[in-house]
Amino acid sequence: MSTLQVAGRKSLMLFSGRAFPELADEIAGFLGVTVTPMTARDFANGEIFVRPEESVRGCDAFVIQSHTVPINQWVMETLIVVDALKRASAKRITVVAPFYPYSRQDKKHRGREPISARLMADLLKTAGADRIMSIDLHTAQIQGFFDGPVDHLFALPLLSDYIAKSYPSQQFTVVSPDTGRVRAAEQWADRLGGAPIAFIHKTRDINVANQVVANRVVGEVEGRLCILADDMIDTGSSIVKAADLLYESGAADVIVAATHAIFSPPATDRLKNSKVREVVVTNTLPIRPEQDFEKLTVLSIAPMIARAIKAVFEDGSVTSLFDGRS
Amino acid sequence: MSTLQVAGRKSLMLFSGRAFPELADEIAGFLGVTVTPMTARDFANGEIFVRPEESVRGCDAFVIQSHTVPINQWVMETLIVVDALKRASAKRITVVAPFYPYSRQDKKHRGREPISARLMADLLKTAGADRIMSIDLHTAQIQGFFDGPVDHLFALPLLSDYIAKSYPSQQFTVVSPDTGRVRAAEQWADRLGGAPIAFIHKTRDINVANQVVANRVVGEVEGRLCILADDMIDTGSSIVKAADLLYESGAADVIVAATHAIFSPPATDRLKNSKVREVVVTNTLPIRPEQDFEKLTVLSIAPMIARAIKAVFEDGSVTSLFDGRS
Amino acid sequence: MSTLQVAGRKSLMLFSGRAFPELADEIAGFLGVTVTPMTARDFANGEIFVRPEESVRGCDAFVIQSHTVPINQWVMETLIVVDALKRASAKRITVVAPFYPYSRQDKKHRGREPISARLMADLLKTAGADRIMSIDLHTAQIQGFFDGPVDHLFALPLLSDYIAKSYPSQQFTVVSPDTGRVRAAEQWADRLGGAPIAFIHKTRDINVANQVVANRVVGEVEGRLCILADDMIDTGSSIVKAADLLYESGAADVIVAATHAIFSPPATDRLKNSKVREVVVTNTLPIRPEQDFEKLTVLSIAPMIARAIKAVFEDGSVTSLFDGRS
Amino acid sequence: MSTLQVAGRKSLMLFSGRAFPELADEIAGFLGVTVTPMTARDFANGEIFVRPEESVRGCDAFVIQSHTVPINQWVMETLIVVDALKRASAKRITVVAPFYPYSRQDKKHRGREPISARLMADLLKTAGADRIMSIDLHTAQIQGFFDGPVDHLFALPLLSDYIAKSYPSQQFTVVSPDTGRVRAAEQWADRLGGAPIAFIHKTRDINVANQVVANRVVGEVEGRLCILADDMIDTGSSIVKAADLLYESGAADVIVAATHAIFSPPATDRLKNSKVREVVVTNTLPIRPEQDFEKLTVLSIAPMIARAIKAVFEDGSVTSLFDGRS
Amino acid sequence: MSTLQVAGRKSLMLFSGRAFPELADEIAGFLGVTVTPMTARDFANGEIFVRPEESVRGCDAFVIQSHTVPINQWVMETLIVVDALKRASAKRITVVAPFYPYSRQDKKHRGREPISARLMADLLKTAGADRIMSIDLHTAQIQGFFDGPVDHLFALPLLSDYIAKSYPSQQFTVVSPDTGRVRAAEQWADRLGGAPIAFIHKTRDINVANQVVANRVVGEVEGRLCILADDMIDTGSSIVKAADLLYESGAADVIVAATHAIFSPPATDRLKNSKVREVVVTNTLPIRPEQDFEKLTVLSIAPMIARAIKAVFEDGSVTSLFDGRS
Amino acid sequence: MSTLQVAGRKSLMLFSGRAFPELADEIAGFLGVTVTPMTARDFANGEIFVRPEESVRGCDAFVIQSHTVPINQWVMETLIVVDALKRASAKRITVVAPFYPYSRQDKKHRGREPISARLMADLLKTAGADRIMSIDLHTAQIQGFFDGPVDHLFALPLLSDYIAKSYPSQQFTVVSPDTGRVRAAEQWADRLGGAPIAFIHKTRDINVANQVVANRVVGEVEGRLCILADDMIDTGSSIVKAADLLYESGAADVIVAATHAIFSPPATDRLKNSKVREVVVTNTLPIRPEQDFEKLTVLSIAPMIARAIKAVFEDGSVTSLFDGRS
Repeated sequence: MSTLQVAGRKSLMLFSGRAFPELADEIAGFLGVTVTPMTARDFANGEIFVRPEESVRGCDAFVIQSHTVPINQWVMETLIVVDALKRASAKRITVVAPFYPYSRQDKKHRGREPISARLMADLLKTAGADRIMSIDLHTAQIQGFFDGPVDHLFALPLLSDYIAKSYPSQQFTVVSPDTGRVRAAEQWADRLGGAPIAFIHKTRDINVANQVVANRVVGEVEGRLCILADDMIDTGSSIVKAADLLYESGAADVIVAATHAIFSPPATDRLKNSKVREVVVTNTLPIRPEQDFEKLTVLSIAPMIARAIKAVFEDGSVTSLFDGRS
Repeated sequence: MSTLQVAGRKSLMLFSGRAFPELADEIAGFLGVTVTPMTARDFANGEIFVRPEESVRGCDAFVIQSHTVPINQWVMETLIVVDALKRASAKRITVVAPFYPYSRQDKKHRGREPISARLMADLLKTAGADRIMSIDLHTAQIQGFFDGPVDHLFALPLLSDYIAKSYPSQQFTVVSPDTGRVRAAEQWADRLGGAPIAFIHKTRDINVANQVVANRVVGEVEGRLCILADDMIDTGSSIVKAADLLYESGAADVIVAATHAIFSPPATDRLKNSKVREVVVTNTLPIRPEQDFEKLTVLSIAPMIARAIKAVFEDGSVTSLFDGRS
Repeated sequence: MSTLQVAGRKSLMLFSGRAFPELADEIAGFLGVTVTPMTARDFANGEIFVRPEESVRGCDAFVIQSHTVPINQWVMETLIVVDALKRASAKRITVVAPFYPYSRQDKKHRGREPISARLMADLLKTAGADRIMSIDLHTAQIQGFFDGPVDHLFALPLLSDYIAKSYPSQQFTVVSPDTGRVRAAEQWADRLGGAPIAFIHKTRDINVANQVVANRVVGEVEGRLCILADDMIDTGSSIVKAADLLYESGAADVIVAATHAIFSPPATDRLKNSKVREVVVTNTLPIRPEQDFEKLTVLSIAPMIARAIKAVFEDGSVTSLFDGRS
Repeated sequence: MSTLQVAGRKSLMLFSGRAFPELADEIAGFLGVTVTPMTARDFANGEIFVRPEESVRGCDAFVIQSHTVPINQWVMETLIVVDALKRASAKRITVVAPFYPYSRQDKKHRGREPISARLMADLLKTAGADRIMSIDLHTAQIQGFFDGPVDHLFALPLLSDYIAKSYPSQQFTVVSPDTGRVRAAEQWADRLGGAPIAFIHKTRDINVANQVVANRVVGEVEGRLCILADDMIDTGSSIVKAADLLYESGAADVIVAATHAIFSPPATDRLKNSKVREVVVTNTLPIRPEQDFEKLTVLSIAPMIARAIKAVFEDGSVTSLFDGRS
Repeated sequence: MSTLQVAGRKSLMLFSGRAFPELADEIAGFLGVTVTPMTARDFANGEIFVRPEESVRGCDAFVIQSHTVPINQWVMETLIVVDALKRASAKRITVVAPFYPYSRQDKKHRGREPISARLMADLLKTAGADRIMSIDLHTAQIQGFFDGPVDHLFALPLLSDYIAKSYPSQQFTVVSPDTGRVRAAEQWADRLGGAPIAFIHKTRDINVANQVVANRVVGEVEGRLCILADDMIDTGSSIVKAADLLYESGAADVIVAATHAIFSPPATDRLKNSKVREVVVTNTLPIRPEQDFEKLTVLSIAPMIARAIKAVFEDGSVTSLFDGRS
Repeated sequence: MSTLQVAGRKSLMLFSGRAFPELADEIAGFLGVTVTPMTARDFANGEIFVRPEESVRGCDAFVIQSHTVPINQWVMETLIVVDALKRASAKRITVVAPFYPYSRQDKKHRGREPISARLMADLLKTAGADRIMSIDLHTAQIQGFFDGPVDHLFALPLLSDYIAKSYPSQQFTVVSPDTGRVRAAEQWADRLGGAPIAFIHKTRDINVANQVVANRVVGEVEGRLCILADDMIDTGSSIVKAADLLYESGAADVIVAATHAIFSPPATDRLKNSKVREVVVTNTLPIRPEQDFEKLTVLSIAPMIARAIKAVFEDGSVTSLFDGRS
């Protein structure tokens, strides 16, 4: 006989970085699989070592990593895991980065700045990633930074359905905390059946990180339940100032909704001590116990990611799962 | 003697596509050079042929092309010129595309869409472009689509200075025609010394090109001189509807300002017949006689491009020339 | 259980550009499939938008485009379709370009010319094409321009079998219209069982497109049925002058055979009004009604392409289908 | 019906260069397949031509080449075979190079040297190789030269098991012939259950190839059966001088063990005429009749390669086959 | 006039990461320049932002970064600085990494491991680095990991000259702490005029980082001043155990010499409390006050790096500066 | 002071492979430089080692190699020299390959063949070549195989001027030895002021190398001095059979002209013993003493290459030097 022939077979394997293994386990649960065991440790000088404990030859690998603090360590771990999988003959490697690292540096605000979000895409490609899956990229253009397929999922249905159900018969106004995300507020408003929208007109000092000068509300907020919607909450400074301004402007109440709960200190204190009625986020990033507080609601993104991974693995349509937008 | 040695020398050469040679000539005039002669013709089936008529070895080449209608022809011509220069040993090739082609397709609005703006960047790179220079990219993230330096210039100072001088002591409100460009309105407002801003809350039907359903103005426009600011005017449908809405909402008057005057029919008729007081654009794209009309003001972008080319050639700072933003 | 496993499966999907959908439909018919529906439209300024209307994840995609006038538009559409398929996770993308665009610019005839045929190959690769299928490349070396597999099919059997059957017991001489295609005439002669060959010795003015100065026939043509064989007919100038010269040189009659019927004006008039007995071409390019004329015979290339696509999809031998030459 | 669907299938095909077809045949025998016939010949000026005689579309191709003298010819043949397979649509190409060419030039010993071992990896990648399989790379770092998976197999178990079985109850000392391979001697010692190790302290003149100045033995060798272990034997000069020194230093006897038997003249004479008791090598390189001699033992590497190819083809673990080290 | 011409000019600019700015300043001092000011800060979630404060167009940029703890942060900063310089049109970018990160993971010790040292080379290349300069790579093969020029400098002359001068008329034995660096000991011995060499025969448990089981000394050390030479000292465990073994084996005294002083805890305590007479290192990595101790000698690597940068900038020979080995 | 600045300077350096150093020396003489000394030797197993003996940093390097027998060795040497120059920081590397290796395998004559001429271009690029210079490529399309500038020089003026001067007032007919080079005969005819052309109609057996079945002459040769023009002479079989046929067909006499004198045995015997009056070639390949014969004329290509190198180095026009065709 001249050749060996065997039937083709596709095999899905999940891998998890060390940043937030609970999320990977939750996704694995929905898929009915277990995360493949992997040695991962740090050398004394911080260099990372990883090694999958089972053969990965020919598998369709999904590497789940939550890029939380210390973010550079977890980015590097992601790259090293991908390198190990590539050299161990994984057939296809998808990096599942629910929170895309460095997404805010997606353009040069001034001359001589890096475009770190593009750099991340190139680093992932170089390490060996064939595809990326992410939730609510800071700007949708980041999809175009990667030279290959990007599955871009949206938390909006998850967040808005929760709020619509929790606050029935309310008069919502959707508020963008700055001028750059009014389009996103519009999508919230559409989803909620045509609510009015507003935004905060402010000035950001580009020489000092996270420092903001808020001015005034543009749009109707008086007497209404304002949904202050953002893609991420970092130190909470900007969102809490926005909420204060809304209350000052006569808002009946304010709910904060965001996909990515970075919650760098003193975000938790600021939100806890604010007049905001509820803060709704997802678990794209881990919420450590000291970051939690009473009026915080964390919705799990795991079912959505599990469905998307299944669709990708089985060549089904991801678009059809998520409102036709991915 | 073992080696030949000569002093290094840098030589700038300008090349122009056939789309808008007058712009290249105007830029050349400001630089005190002439555009290098180049054979360019179409074969009977539309295939383009080009050939620079002088040696280009070792030169610092700037290829100026204005991506107007028929846009695919001019994109292809740009690529072919770059290929010819690369194979003829130009040392460095900068594509000067005042209007970046396909910039509106900078993300997937729905699944399975192309990201044509990224594709353009990759095509230019593949043909041999080392650098890109452009004016007012549809979104700044497009800079990150190109794997190399991008000089991103801004027409805002040119446009806003003209308006501020032409309409002294006016009460401006800067209006974004949709929710996606409120940030740009904010930059206009800053430039004009702190004017209020507003926007039009509308819905765009993503299944039908250029069709828009405008709703209502958010922000204060009553009794004010509204500057309706956009990056480009294509058929004019959206901008004229926005202007009508502003007049209905009590605006004292409306000025339209945009960098890129695509002016696809019936843009000229729409603008001419509208109540808009003045339309201010630049010549990043040619204004053909039949596109012109009385209340249209065209500001030349050539001096700005010439200064930027000179700075790039001489390794000076482009950033310092343009308000610290390029 | 640790992993999900499913059986591998391959799925063929056909896509068509807008240049000549009838050819794609005909090919689909032979394959027993339908062309996958795809939204395709032009924005007002000519920018092209496409979107496949079904999930293409994991499919073996064949994109059929006929690069006819306006050729730059169709080239760009091909690139954008490939980009969309790549980003939508098609597993493998084959561009079926029966007429390879810019194939005549396959070398530098003089210094500083582009090599546009290589550029096309690189653009297709950059957009995401894994493979190319084409018919009768202007020169076979173009296969080497693409960094990947190229299925190069030949229309010679189709054309020569038709002529041999239509003109039995004739004394053929195969004539090359210029010195560059004498080898091809030799292949025709072999296929026809050893006919003599001849060629036209002429001078082409490289500074003016399509202009030719014909001199004299080299080889025996007197009293014979001459098959004037070329790969493409553009304006028809060169081929009709060659036919005239053959008649002047005593040819009994002249049949023109060519794979690619570009038929730029005034090709149809020239051929119709010439003494040529029959013009035999294939439908690699569409023949519009106004291009048709009585003595024109169009043979369909669709069955050959369908067989080749099937062989590629099923990992069969394409070579075995087409006389051992592909 | 809209698409064609067929079940996936994987098909293994073996190809062999002309350097050592007997090895490929032996490997094929263990796999129960035959080597795919391939035309291979040299043009009069030495240019190589190859052509597989069967369709290779979609196959998982393994190209077996033994890089013996004339090594540059065989390297070039390997590259050309890979190019032919790539262009003929093989799905995946693994180059099986039991002896990696130019492995000794894996670093710059002095400024301005090439790093030819990296160059080989890049050439293979450029030609179209997706993966490499090799035995006992001169340094393990060479794995990192290739941008893709490398299956690195080890002959140590084969060689050491043979020696342990042939010389039971002996007092071994494992000796490195120079300071650069003491680590390898340590691995031998571990494998033999903890034998002591020693090395030769010598100076190599980097300006003259293969010339060595041996000094003295460091470590205990008196009265012991020394295993002089190296990765390759080229001219044998260094290994025979080392053996002489061991005898002078009181060694009871000396066995030479090496994976790669290059045996450039006068290696055979040197080894045959030396006091060395046995020389044990593998057949990663062919042993021509004139290179053979009585005390030479050649162990076949074919079973190990066959097992590794099978594991790679079937996505099994290669690591598990070879002591957890590949 | 047709073109602008200016004389070519080369301009050297130094940039420093935040890991060890004192080293960059010291190098700058030797070169007679200053480090170019650069904004560098961390966002609240650890994302790094950098921006050179002066135009870098056309410059020959040298980015000096000392990859100390937290190493992943500094690697990422290096990449981002390079990205910023590339996009700001620096002409050539050399990364000066005195300690190459992840150099110990330069091969797969077992299957499925990453080759992180190669990954680092690829990441640097992807970000935009044209060249690398480093001191005493863990293995010289790492030079081959980078696709471009690598200037590999050696601290041996610096360290050995210091020891030779400090301990005149001593009977040295050079000792390698393990079997993998006996070659390096040999180079020390050559440099010291022919000292004998020895090594420690030990076993490293590959499943537990930094854990070592030392056995015995091979070679003559009794009564001699042993130079225990290594490329780096991390936790000091292995080197201190080796020193103890040397004292047990009768060494007169032990000096430890290493290029890279990582000094992860408890390295300082271990070395301070050991019987070792002197520890000699360089400042490729910063020695923080709490890492310092009385018998530690730190030699500055800055003059050597400054000379190499100057040679690279001026196209002089680096090889000639450093004993003909770079 | 913040930066170091020096004036730019360009430095030309010539390097030569070992295949034909006399040609490099002759070129160097015309340029007034000397070839840079380079160590080059073979290891016992044929592996090549090279090392330039002077610093090459920043130089404009021209590597001259004549790809004669054993061709694979010289190709590999070229690649290794380029690798060494790249890693030693040469600024730009031009490979001067007067005879381009594997140029006859520039297309797939049948399915599953390699395209080795494209492979050569890719290998040179991968090794680090920025540019290529060559004489009379087998087909001009090979220029398009290289991704970068190719200076394609023509020996036609050299050869034809010699013949025109040596045979004044003769009635020439230019004859192509096969149907594939009739175009080249046409260029000869143009150069000679309008001579008639002819060709040999023959069949080549593609399964057996160099074996040809000649048939008959097409065109007027009776009583004329035939110039049998080819690009290369390998074994001479085809050219001598063609000459015989010309004499049989009544040719007054036959001169053979070719650029590349491969002269594989028995070419010299065949040509010497033929009736051919004179054989005119160039020294793109070395003519060894045993290949020489009385009626052979060798014209030196060195002055042309020297002029082209000078033009490339000084950014002058190569096109202007060589009849407007390069």
